[in-house]
Amino acid sequence: MTASPISDLNPVFMAAGCKLTLMDKDTSREVQMDDSFFTGYRKTVVRPQEILVSVHIPYSKKFQFVSAFKQSPRREDDISIVTTAMSVTFAPGTEVVEDIRLSYGGMAPTTVLAKKTANKLLGRQWGEELLQEACLSLAEEMTLDPSAPGGMVTYRRTLTLSLFYKFFLTVLQKLRLQGVGTQEVSSDCVSATEVYQPETPSGIQIYQAVPEGQSQDDVVGRPMMHLSALKQATGEAVYCDDIPLYENELYLVLITSTKAHARILSVDVSAAKRCPGVVCCLFADDVPGSNITGVKQDETVFADGQVSCVGHIIGAVVADTQVHAQRAAKAVKIQYEELQPIVTIQEAIAARSFYEPIRTLQSGDLEAGFKQAQHTLEGEIHIGGQEHFYLETYVTLAVPRGEDGEMELFVSTQSPSDSQCIVAQALGVPANRVLVRVKRMGGGFGGKESRTTALSTVVAVAANKLKRPVRCMLDRDEDMLITGGRHPFYGKYKVGFLNSGKVVALDVSLYSNAGNSTDLSLAIMERALFHMENSYSIPNIRGQGFMCRTNLPSNTAFRGFGGPQGMMVAESWITDVAHSLGRSAEEVRRLNLYVEGEPTPYNQVLHGVTLDRCWDECLSRSGYEQRRAAVDLHNRQNRWTKRGLSVVPTKFGISFTATFLNQAGALVHIYKDGSVLMTHGGTEMGQGLHTKMVQVASRVLGIPSSKIHISETSTNTVANTSPTAASASSDLNGAAVCNACEILLKRLEPFKTKNPRGSWEDWVKAAYFERVNLSANGFFKTPDLGYSFDTNSGRAFNYFSYGVACSEVEIDCLTGAHKNLKTTIVMDVGLSLNPAIDIGQVEGGFMQGLGLFTLEELHYSPQGVLLTRGPGSYKIPAFGDIPKQLTVSLLRDAPNDKAIFASKAVGEPPLFLASSIFYAIKDAIMAARAESGITGPFRLDSPASAERIRIACSDRFTKLCPPAEPGTFRPWSVQV
Amino acid sequence: MTASPISDLNPVFMAAGCKLTLMDKDTSREVQMDDSFFTGYRKTVVRPQEILVSVHIPYSKKFQFVSAFKQSPRREDDISIVTTAMSVTFAPGTEVVEDIRLSYGGMAPTTVLAKKTANKLLGRQWGEELLQEACLSLAEEMTLDPSAPGGMVTYRRTLTLSLFYKFFLTVLQKLRLQGVGTQEVSSDCVSATEVYQPETPSGIQIYQAVPEGQSQDDVVGRPMMHLSALKQATGEAVYCDDIPLYENELYLVLITSTKAHARILSVDVSAAKRCPGVVCCLFADDVPGSNITGVKQDETVFADGQVSCVGHIIGAVVADTQVHAQRAAKAVKIQYEELQPIVTIQEAIAARSFYEPIRTLQSGDLEAGFKQAQHTLEGEIHIGGQEHFYLETYVTLAVPRGEDGEMELFVSTQSPSDSQCIVAQALGVPANRVLVRVKRMGGGFGGKESRTTALSTVVAVAANKLKRPVRCMLDRDEDMLITGGRHPFYGKYKVGFLNSGKVVALDVSLYSNAGNSTDLSLAIMERALFHMENSYSIPNIRGQGFMCRTNLPSNTAFRGFGGPQGMMVAESWITDVAHSLGRSAEEVRRLNLYVEGEPTPYNQVLHGVTLDRCWDECLSRSGYEQRRAAVDLHNRQNRWTKRGLSVVPTKFGISFTATFLNQAGALVHIYKDGSVLMTHGGTEMGQGLHTKMVQVASRVLGIPSSKIHISETSTNTVANTSPTAASASSDLNGAAVCNACEILLKRLEPFKTKNPRGSWEDWVKAAYFERVNLSANGFFKTPDLGYSFDTNSGRAFNYFSYGVACSEVEIDCLTGAHKNLKTTIVMDVGLSLNPAIDIGQVEGGFMQGLGLFTLEELHYSPQGVLLTRGPGSYKIPAFGDIPKQLTVSLLRDAPNDKAIFASKAVGEPPLFLASSIFYAIKDAIMAARAESGITGPFRLDSPASAERIRIACSDRFTKLCPPAEPGTFRPWSVQV
Repeated sequence: MTASPISDLNPVFMAAGCKLTLMDKDTSREVQMDDSFFTGYRKTVVRPQEILVSVHIPYSKKFQFVSAFKQSPRREDDISIVTTAMSVTFAPGTEVVEDIRLSYGGMAPTTVLAKKTANKLLGRQWGEELLQEACLSLAEEMTLDPSAPGGMVTYRRTLTLSLFYKFFLTVLQKLRLQGVGTQEVSSDCVSATEVYQPETPSGIQIYQAVPEGQSQDDVVGRPMMHLSALKQATGEAVYCDDIPLYENELYLVLITSTKAHARILSVDVSAAKRCPGVVCCLFADDVPGSNITGVKQDETVFADGQVSCVGHIIGAVVADTQVHAQRAAKAVKIQYEELQPIVTIQEAIAARSFYEPIRTLQSGDLEAGFKQAQHTLEGEIHIGGQEHFYLETYVTLAVPRGEDGEMELFVSTQSPSDSQCIVAQALGVPANRVLVRVKRMGGGFGGKESRTTALSTVVAVAANKLKRPVRCMLDRDEDMLITGGRHPFYGKYKVGFLNSGKVVALDVSLYSNAGNSTDLSLAIMERALFHMENSYSIPNIRGQGFMCRTNLPSNTAFRGFGGPQGMMVAESWITDVAHSLGRSAEEVRRLNLYVEGEPTPYNQVLHGVTLDRCWDECLSRSGYEQRRAAVDLHNRQNRWTKRGLSVVPTKFGISFTATFLNQAGALVHIYKDGSVLMTHGGTEMGQGLHTKMVQVASRVLGIPSSKIHISETSTNTVANTSPTAASASSDLNGAAVCNACEILLKRLEPFKTKNPRGSWEDWVKAAYFERVNLSANGFFKTPDLGYSFDTNSGRAFNYFSYGVACSEVEIDCLTGAHKNLKTTIVMDVGLSLNPAIDIGQVEGGFMQGLGLFTLEELHYSPQGVLLTRGPGSYKIPAFGDIPKQLTVSLLRDAPNDKAIFASKAVGEPPLFLASSIFYAIKDAIMAARAESGITGPFRLDSPASAERIRIACSDRFTKLCPPAEPGTFRPWSVQV
Repeated sequence: MTASPISDLNPVFMAAGCKLTLMDKDTSREVQMDDSFFTGYRKTVVRPQEILVSVHIPYSKKFQFVSAFKQSPRREDDISIVTTAMSVTFAPGTEVVEDIRLSYGGMAPTTVLAKKTANKLLGRQWGEELLQEACLSLAEEMTLDPSAPGGMVTYRRTLTLSLFYKFFLTVLQKLRLQGVGTQEVSSDCVSATEVYQPETPSGIQIYQAVPEGQSQDDVVGRPMMHLSALKQATGEAVYCDDIPLYENELYLVLITSTKAHARILSVDVSAAKRCPGVVCCLFADDVPGSNITGVKQDETVFADGQVSCVGHIIGAVVADTQVHAQRAAKAVKIQYEELQPIVTIQEAIAARSFYEPIRTLQSGDLEAGFKQAQHTLEGEIHIGGQEHFYLETYVTLAVPRGEDGEMELFVSTQSPSDSQCIVAQALGVPANRVLVRVKRMGGGFGGKESRTTALSTVVAVAANKLKRPVRCMLDRDEDMLITGGRHPFYGKYKVGFLNSGKVVALDVSLYSNAGNSTDLSLAIMERALFHMENSYSIPNIRGQGFMCRTNLPSNTAFRGFGGPQGMMVAESWITDVAHSLGRSAEEVRRLNLYVEGEPTPYNQVLHGVTLDRCWDECLSRSGYEQRRAAVDLHNRQNRWTKRGLSVVPTKFGISFTATFLNQAGALVHIYKDGSVLMTHGGTEMGQGLHTKMVQVASRVLGIPSSKIHISETSTNTVANTSPTAASASSDLNGAAVCNACEILLKRLEPFKTKNPRGSWEDWVKAAYFERVNLSANGFFKTPDLGYSFDTNSGRAFNYFSYGVACSEVEIDCLTGAHKNLKTTIVMDVGLSLNPAIDIGQVEGGFMQGLGLFTLEELHYSPQGVLLTRGPGSYKIPAFGDIPKQLTVSLLRDAPNDKAIFASKAVGEPPLFLASSIFYAIKDAIMAARAESGITGPFRLDSPASAERIRIACSDRFTKLCPPAEPGTFRPWSVQV
């Protein structure tokens, strides 16, 4: 009996008037589950020695109606924000309330009954007057302190009314069905009474077949199954922590800061050292090499006197088991002198707490642009961060090799070479002593690009000190606490446009919450600026980027790498432009789309633009026009559910913006038996890179893919690799693999010529016996790159990936819940290397974006403490969030002359298309607001959570629950 | 109280008349340690409940003389062949024997007293007559069954006499010292009474300094310390079995045949499976891939119905620990139907049991040659095999990687690629699923070239079946039992020569004992044939090579690879030629030496011959002429110790005779921090290959060697590697490393040019940021190779390594013991890459050859059971076997234009120079035989063991102990 105040069942029991039979060893008693049952937070009248024997649930009576409602951030597998159960009993044959019980969860430390309101309603007729009375009374009775745990205070209060209204309508309907009611529920309100039924989503995947006549052995362009798919489905795939334990292996647990900003006054490990199994504790003094670390060398392996975020690594405990190490880590006592933290972007702006440099990207004549504009408007949007939520958390197994300072590390990382270098630096050895091996990751998404070294260095230092293997895999809560995620962004813009909707001037300021170190924040901000115009040609433009230095764990790369945030701001102002002109957003978007040959703000002239083709195909595949009409019809016919429709384009620049990273290597061996072992600079994180690389090698060598194997990525086979990031890994490594295979093929040519009817194995054997080198090291660097911010010249990207999505949603205006009805995506991936994998990336990227823009919320306390530390409180998309109809079409006949076999990058570009859901929601909200007579642009921050949707759908109920005056209270969580 | 019959002390106690005080809980008693004390093999009168309290050793009396003698195969740390203690007491002031006790060990199942002989000597005068009487009596009393355990029956019998003679002389001397004796020990016999005192050997190492002006960073040519030397000296160096255990790891123990040739009737594992800790038993049916294996695919992973040697692998037991697995393996019951085995070469010849093909190498006109000859002689020699006795026995750790049939193996092997392929074949997976890693071996010597797969396949099959890591490191006895060694050879020759000693015709047949599979026997026989003329130009020559198929474990590669055996036969006939002509062997050798431009029997014209230079330097450094005079003087002055002197040249062909193996690869990475990780196809087995390769890379890259690291050899970094064998690994891999480094250097050139004052790190960093490929795959194949036996044309070798050694020894004619007095070696290693390592190789190779030719004996029973299974019974050279003065000089100014940096191979060539010890012994024996009036050629088989030396020094004592008629008894061991 947890007696959780957000229990789903307790309100039902309470409203239904259940009785509980309790028993102890002597006696038995019966108690009513009414408002006296819960005596405090997670406390009840049940005595410790009593057990619950039975629950008596009374049958409902003829004139009794019972309903229960639950509102949670996500529909599936989630705990409530507010839950309610309501029971009303009428005097027989009348609409007069004889008894009513309104029970709420999530509105107090216990499940409560709205007794005052119920009393007021007794004897009243079930009608509009009663509704008004009830709402007024509930708004008064069901209050919450503005600082209440869980936050969302206004929303929760609103829900008490909104859900009562749903009950009101439901009862009205039922009364009428019983032939008692006199009032009819008007048809436009019926949908508010409908109960949500999950539907099985269906998908359509459209791709181009390979040309007729392509050899069966040539799998390029075919939807070959991901090489690990079956293993991953069966659980046989081996991840880092699946490596068998060494007998003398130890487990490490981190000691982290509980303060966002503080001086460390003292660390007391005496109790920890007494814990069973503890081998040692490690702190900054134990680092044999440099304690300075990080991408920009502005971090430490272990905190040095001061902490700058909650989760800041202060030390580590090494013990025989994880449980022992965790117990000991908890026993470490740290005294702090707390300093004022900066947590939010707004606090950082106020304090001008920025990392250098402040980037500006400008082209055209801004002043002239605004002068030319017939309208200007200003706006802003905040885009929340995102937790990577890779299934596999950070993990490192460090195995000292026993001599010369050699260490072998198994790391779940996107950057084996960086891990190697940074670990070597911490150990004080040259890089050639450190071997990093990566078989696969259970997801990376950018979260394992630069930040994994925070753990790997610590584990390596421990293994080096103890001369024993040391392992650490973070628990989910540790991982979420310690590692940063996607940068929250705040965008402020001023936009000038013509009556037509053509945007002629844009001035935008982007602020990112970088956290407590620089990490990759500059490159992320740069990519945000490179994408600030999304797919729109803006002649006069200026973007400025500010990286806020805050006391959060350093935020880092995340699929899209600032691009989605930059584009999200763009979609905000283009929507505002449409709204302010009263035009459809699609019309304005289409009007502003880039066309072939136009320059970007960074002076890269666009070639091979397929935006128009994607747009047109998307509109036609989605049946946009008919849907728009259907949506409008729905919205005219329904007051409390609204549908929205949105078409959003995306243009994603492909290349690392750090030019030197656009290189890749490969090492291909043909063994004597003809089997091929290949490795390249890229890592497999589920995205199918290895599958694609096998396809590339298979085509170049002209052999079935079954003869080719990739075992892992390692720093002793391919050196100085760039992170597997920036969507460029197939391009870069594919070209390097191709290079290596071509070298080998050329060496084999004489043997093929001599024995044209021979098999691959014959040629290989002959070449081996002729002493031909059957190993080749391949290499590739992307040509013609080198953008400079100083001169705003030079090519920033090798090419662009384009896509367009059209989404339709339906919102429940009373609860803020929404349904993703239909999404149609048209994506230009060039000539797909593997349509199965590419469509998987499109779908996966889209769903991750959907989480970003509609669902996922990291809650931080005003003191910078992360409150959402696991799947219980942090909700990524579930099955029910998949659009009921999801169509992904890969654009036909769109070869890309800039990448391997005319393909295009696909990892990040589709993610932003999920904003079509966000803007469809915004479209639906606009319709809801129109019912309250509110028109024109309005701010909607991301994610478009149920709370935000509900609040934005301003109506009579929300008006009864005004928010508390900001600054008059300390909120539970802040928008960082 | 082991009561060992070859106890060193018991004869002394017995001869001295010791008394033992024994005690049990009730009583105490005193027993005399006389001939009634030992009641049987390892049995005494001591009762089980008794303990030994004290040993009473009586003081010797004034006219009592006690001596003890021990003869063992090796002087240090060895058990006796025969041991004796003798005590004689004279009537005061006389030479009349009052009491005499002659106690012998090694002549019966117990320590015995020669009571009959002693009785006969009582009351007799200590003089020549007594000696004759004693010898006759001892020869009668101290008999041994010709089948007696331990063998060496004639030798042991002879020793009873010879040692008595030593005692006789010693007592004579002492009597005289006491003023009693009338007879004097003649001066030529004094040395027979001298007691051996170990002396500390001293060595001189001479090499050429690097040219003046060579950069300090350029370590090529300098005596740089072996990179692992300190670690190996301290025990910190990590070998395969030092890899920490995995928690779920299992241990494997082999089930092997106890029969040399048999059908397996049944295998009963029921008892084994009941043993604690047993996980499973494995047999042929458990091999998922092919059970057929081996270099020539004529072997099985597990025996299939039949066994063909003792130690043949039938199955394996896997358990949690080694002890448990061993216990279970012993509990496996196997029933055999025994078949007649073929054990020896002579048996194989009789049965014409040969492997195909029988190789013939012929040049000139044999018939004409013999016609031209003024003399012909025939002879024969048997050269015993040799156990590799690497310090580290066979070991494999197989770790299944959990998917795709991947397996990672840590193996102590010279052939990672062959291990990979053969394991893959057994597992039924392509080679690309198997990764073999070799950090270093604790010695290889050829024993880990092809045979290690016998263990690796079994361990891999077990790991694959159980999906758990499995390890096996053979115990020494298992290793000696299961793995073959150097091929025993039997050579038969007919040689035609002129009066001058010039050999004009040679017909030689070589028979090798190949064992139960082909393995590398053909290549070994070919190399024996390629070296059948050693360094001598023989115009008309024919060699035939027969590989005997026997029921011994397959013999295999061993440093020299047949070359030493071929050359040993040559030195036998050249010695015979000299003996038959009465000329000095050195004169005949010098006369026949190859000179520049002469062709070999395989039609390879010799260029850059340095034999003459080595010869002359060796003679001058050793002071040959003076020593010859001193030896002659010694021999004239000493009847029972003789000195011998010999100068032996060697010429060793460098290349794998299998042309395709003359290839090598390397992979060199320069990491961003400037550190270099290098790997190449060669393995480190203590020979210093990695050190040399680092030197090569250091010179080519122009950086200090400290920046370069080699971690290991692995099949995923360099593919299709040839075994580290044939002395060619520095040549081949050095060239491949050079190739890779030159590629890298060229890529760095622009950055050096641009920033000539920059550091290596500057250039590397600049190149990295410019996206220059800092990895290179190097390759090398030796040009212009390709000998064909069919046409007797094509170059067999890339070049030859030459050397000459002069050795002086002293033999004890009575015991057969010998002392290595002085050896001077001049070796042509071209321009040494590393004189410290090269001299180490010369010294090590020489000492291993010394073991081969003078010490090491594998004893097999007539049924093919190996009797010598450990260091207790198999004696490799000890400190005392090092020549007291050992000088190694590397020939100056001898650049070799055929290999890296003008160096030459050094691994195998020096080994044969140890035959100079053998032929010095033979020289000394000749002097001894001359004392008995025997002259002319005589057969001396290798090794020149104490037994063989003693028997060859035919004298009055040996005549008293004639060998039993062959065929009339079953010997303990046979010459295989």
